[in-house]
Amino acid sequence: MSDNLFAGLPSAVAVDEQFRAILQRPGLKIERIVSTGQASPPGFWYDQADGEWVVVLQGEAKLRFADETEARHLKAGDHLDIAPHRRHRVDWTQPDAPTVWLAVFYSV
Amino acid sequence: MSDNLFAGLPSAVAVDEQFRAILQRPGLKIERIVSTGQASPPGFWYDQADGEWVVVLQGEAKLRFADETEARHLKAGDHLDIAPHRRHRVDWTQPDAPTVWLAVFYSV
Repeated sequence: MSDNLFAGLPSAVAVDEQFRAILQRPGLKIERIVSTGQASPPGFWYDQADGEWVVVLQGEAKLRFADETEARHLKAGDHLDIAPHRRHRVDWTQPDAPTVWLAVFYSV
Repeated sequence: MSDNLFAGLPSAVAVDEQFRAILQRPGLKIERIVSTGQASPPGFWYDQADGEWVVVLQGEAKLRFADETEARHLKAGDHLDIAPHRRHRVDWTQPDAPTVWLAVFYSV
């Protein structure tokens, strides 16, 4: 009938983050990301050509911008927009339960 | 620090639905919609030039497509994509608590 963003979550801690494309259109991708304690590798920064609007729907995460000194602590409902090429990384996600992100990537 | 999709919800039933633009870019609009029991007027159908991907984040709603006989009952996490010009209406939203929608409108 309809798909659900909270369906099929890992019941235990998974080794890898899960990425699932929800919608793909020219210049637009909506993706569900499920983290279970993962963080970006040490020293790694995302540097994306597309803009990315992201919201945490469940769980908690710390997202760090290279141009800020402190990570932003995101909880359910917290959202932010990541401009193209603004370097960022995930410093931390909640280790004991899945963190569900919804990301909207858009070309600018 | 960051905005929250669940902040500023009406504490009681509001007369009108609330619409808040979260992000606007060329060909893209992300919007939060808060319903408190409202439905589309009788006989009214949305007929949109843009595509719309929509998810219910909190609460419940019944969304009806003109080309289907039964409304789809959406609960938290349920999402669907509405193709341009696919006529649809909101038959019902939960009357006693806010229903929070996230809608992504995109040009095709």
